[in-house]
Amino acid sequence: VPHRVIVALDSLEGGLHAASRITDELCDHVAGFKVGLPLVLRYGVAVATRLRSICSNRLWIADFKLADIGEIMKSVVEPVAGSIDAVIAHSFVGVKGALGDLKAFLDSIDKKLILVATMSHPGAEEVYDHVLDLVDGVIEQVRPWGLVAPATRPAIVARLRRRHPWATILAPGVGVQGARPGTALCHGADYEIAGRMVTLSHSPLEALKRIGLEQEEALRRCRERREA
Amino acid sequence: VPHRVIVALDSLEGGLHAASRITDELCDHVAGFKVGLPLVLRYGVAVATRLRSICSNRLWIADFKLADIGEIMKSVVEPVAGSIDAVIAHSFVGVKGALGDLKAFLDSIDKKLILVATMSHPGAEEVYDHVLDLVDGVIEQVRPWGLVAPATRPAIVARLRRRHPWATILAPGVGVQGARPGTALCHGADYEIAGRMVTLSHSPLEALKRIGLEQEEALRRCRERREA
Repeated sequence: VPHRVIVALDSLEGGLHAASRITDELCDHVAGFKVGLPLVLRYGVAVATRLRSICSNRLWIADFKLADIGEIMKSVVEPVAGSIDAVIAHSFVGVKGALGDLKAFLDSIDKKLILVATMSHPGAEEVYDHVLDLVDGVIEQVRPWGLVAPATRPAIVARLRRRHPWATILAPGVGVQGARPGTALCHGADYEIAGRMVTLSHSPLEALKRIGLEQEEALRRCRERREA
Repeated sequence: VPHRVIVALDSLEGGLHAASRITDELCDHVAGFKVGLPLVLRYGVAVATRLRSICSNRLWIADFKLADIGEIMKSVVEPVAGSIDAVIAHSFVGVKGALGDLKAFLDSIDKKLILVATMSHPGAEEVYDHVLDLVDGVIEQVRPWGLVAPATRPAIVARLRRRHPWATILAPGVGVQGARPGTALCHGADYEIAGRMVTLSHSPLEALKRIGLEQEEALRRCRERREA
């Protein structure tokens, strides 16, 4: 069974020491890790290098939610580029002078681009969800490696899977934010992103294994439904 | 004449030393400074404290273009909160679970929120410009201290001035990005943000003074037109 969980190392409780310990403990059981601005601003960009050195054969994603002009996004990525495999940016900023430039830059250094299609919190329905068709257009033009879509709203995951069959879909929102493990996978996601549910558990590895089992169970059930 | 220029310390040429020197040289002649992620990621969050100590009686803005859920945006602001006066976030992430939480947090520590209404690059027309009405709604709900609107597109500045008369409008895009100094002020902006035109000049102070004169001239001409 391939690992289908990416662990978000966003929570700061326990600091860098806890992040290192969790990375080591989970390394053999995850598809990858996601590192956000809270961690990097607090401990410096070297934190990415340090964590990666603990578990180098997994996918490392810089989740800075980039949303600026191309030149600035490139300057933000450059200091961490050596220690990550992929970068998350917002589709909202458009192609010309923004994501087009970022994609060309990331291609040139052999790194992956992941675009947020919409988000998992209630506020995403106020603006983001109104422009899903325009976002689809941006996605088709930019052709990023991956997409971020909310596990909390599986209909959106299914929609993106239909429209962008070539894309790798990552679904955050599993656990504390409310999505059940496996639901987004059933709707076409490739990976589910879990954060606090794992990192704040007294046993992160047990929490992760439980998610893996729930994912398998959910996938089994939705395959059965499809065949019925 | 009040200073109407905010200088963006985004360009990295010359590094921290150049940024310190420019801050010192321009301190008495600007309304404030804007510090972005490129600088902070490269030199650490202490860079904000250090630059501010050189010129503490001006407005210091953290331009991280925040675009995440409320909890993450708060975690990103916390490490720099002590050395800045205001924070820039994107309106498109919506109020619930995002900007509402950020605004409450910033209010509690007596810091200002500035929301991007739309951007200055061509890609802004692909998605952002399509939801200006929804963005207006977010702005009215959140009631941030300030708004960011492109100096390169004065009609949008004028529209925001009409709809949100209470807001402080900051207009980036002056200089290298193509907007003439003073145009955004004529259309209702309170401040114009200049970056490379000043920071990459062989004499930043001269470049700044030239912008100030152009602003005065532009304001005089548009007052005349209005009275004619």
